[in-house]
This record gives sequence, structure tokens and C-alpha cells, in this order.
Amino acid sequence: MSRSDLAQTTCSVARTIERVGDTWTLMIVREMFLGSRRFDDLQRHTGASPHVLSQRLKHMQADGIIWARNYSERPPRQEYLLTDKGKDLWPVIVTLRAWGNKWLHEERDRPPTIITHKGCGEDTEPYLVCDKCGEPLHAHDCIGRIGPAMEAERQVR
Amino acid sequence: MSRSDLAQTTCSVARTIERVGDTWTLMIVREMFLGSRRFDDLQRHTGASPHVLSQRLKHMQADGIIWARNYSERPPRQEYLLTDKGKDLWPVIVTLRAWGNKWLHEERDRPPTIITHKGCGEDTEPYLVCDKCGEPLHAHDCIGRIGPAMEAERQVR
Repeated sequence: MSRSDLAQTTCSVARTIERVGDTWTLMIVREMFLGSRRFDDLQRHTGASPHVLSQRLKHMQADGIIWARNYSERPPRQEYLLTDKGKDLWPVIVTLRAWGNKWLHEERDRPPTIITHKGCGEDTEPYLVCDKCGEPLHAHDCIGRIGPAMEAERQVR
Repeated sequence: MSRSDLAQTTCSVARTIERVGDTWTLMIVREMFLGSRRFDDLQRHTGASPHVLSQRLKHMQADGIIWARNYSERPPRQEYLLTDKGKDLWPVIVTLRAWGNKWLHEERDRPPTIITHKGCGEDTEPYLVCDKCGEPLHAHDCIGRIGPAMEAERQVR
């Protein structure tokens, strides 16, 4: 199977991975959440090459994850912003961050980025809870099962 | 910057992306959460080529995300399991899944995979909350800031 074939599978995880599960796409999304909008800033802070960055931005725009608007007419210059679909990737970035803070960092109590919750004004370390009972969730609290459509697809593979 | 250089940056998101932000690594992690342990099953259900799968499993083992154990002595056969570090990637998979269910699926009310919370017995759609006040969190509820160490790094780039 090639990477692009994942888009044809039933699994939402696989489909999402096909769309955004790529080093530079994820880095661009991270950088946009930190406020960068312009090509030069995105290039400098993600470290992507101009070619790769330009290619990824095109894909992300075609996928409706970002949109472009002119910030200068002469010369024509564009900046890039996350759409609602793109902003919905925030939990993915937040959970990648939490894993890195826990497992790839020496100073866990001093994370490189700080997330402040505007509602309560505190710096926050978001975590997942059950939408039915509100309890915190970790891998061992849950069982993942495959639904009928995905099961049928796996049988023929 | 090459992909591997991301491991040297301060940002936990970038470090995590360098380690696991790759199509096939994420697909392997997804598949392990669905219960697959053996090479053939992992290959069939992720769609990775044997070469790519074998390479990724080696990396993941070196990174302490999975470990291998023999399930047969003659012939020698191994199966692969997530370590605690690997199991901590569950929130990443869960948030990728939620995004795919919302944005890449026609039937949002019938997700391809079902997550059951053992604690309360209900099928759950996990979401992020603030660890300080317990309120649900979305991108627009929060401000992400760059800490001093990461800021210093960005200035010189």
C-alpha cells in the first residue's frame, strides 16, 4: 500500500495520517498555532526547505486546512491562516507536545511552550476525559474496537 | 534543516514529530492499539512494505516505544508490544481519530472504531480539558506561548 492509499481506507486514524501525518505538515501546523503566517517565518521556524514548504502549503490549502490571503498588493504577498478544520488539529499538537514534554525532555517542569487557558487564566496541561462520565482517560482505561465497516475491510485484506 | 535535526530543537512538539511524526510509525502505533503484535498482522493491517515495517520497528524498539518478545523458539519468532512510553501515545492516536471522524468521514455518528471506557462502561469520545479548572479546551480557548529557552533558540535562527 502506498501512503496515498490510506485515504481510501475506512479507519479515521489512517485517513488523518494520510492527510497530516507527515513531518513538515505537522511542523507547519505547530508553527501556525504559535502565530507564524508568512512564508519566510514558516520556513525559518519549521526548518522545511522552500520547496517542501511550498508543496505542503499547497496541499494544506487544497485540503481546506489553511487559507491564504494577500497582505500586500504590490508586490503581491500572501499569508496563511488555519481554517476551522485546521484549528481542529489543536488537540493533535497538544498531545504530541505532552508526550514530548514527558518522554523527550529533561526538565519536565519547565516545558518549552506554555499554554494558557483564557477561561481560568492559568497555565494548563490539557488531558483527555471521557465524554460520558468525565473521568481522565489513558490507554489502559479503554478498549478500542473495530466497527462493522472496518472489520469487513480488514477481512478481505 | 533535515528531519533528524528536529530532535535537537527545544520544542517538544518538534522532538515528538521527529520521533513518531511519520506515516508508518503512526500506523504501527494505531495497529498495536487495535491489538496486532506480529509482523504479518502489522504488515497486512498497516499496509507498510516489509522493508519499511522492519525498519520502523527497529527504530521504535531503539527509541523504547515498543519491545519484542519471542512467542516461538523453533522457529524463532518475535512479537512486538508497546512499552509504557509507547502506550502514552494513545492520546495522539485518539485525537487523530477524532479529527478524521469529524472532517474526513461521511457518517460522523458511526465511527469506524469504537472506544469503550472500562470505568463507566460507555462508548466514549474523549476530549481535552484544562487540568486547572476542568473546562473543555479548544484552540480558541487557549494561548500558546514560547518559553525562554525556545525563544532564545528562535532568535539565532
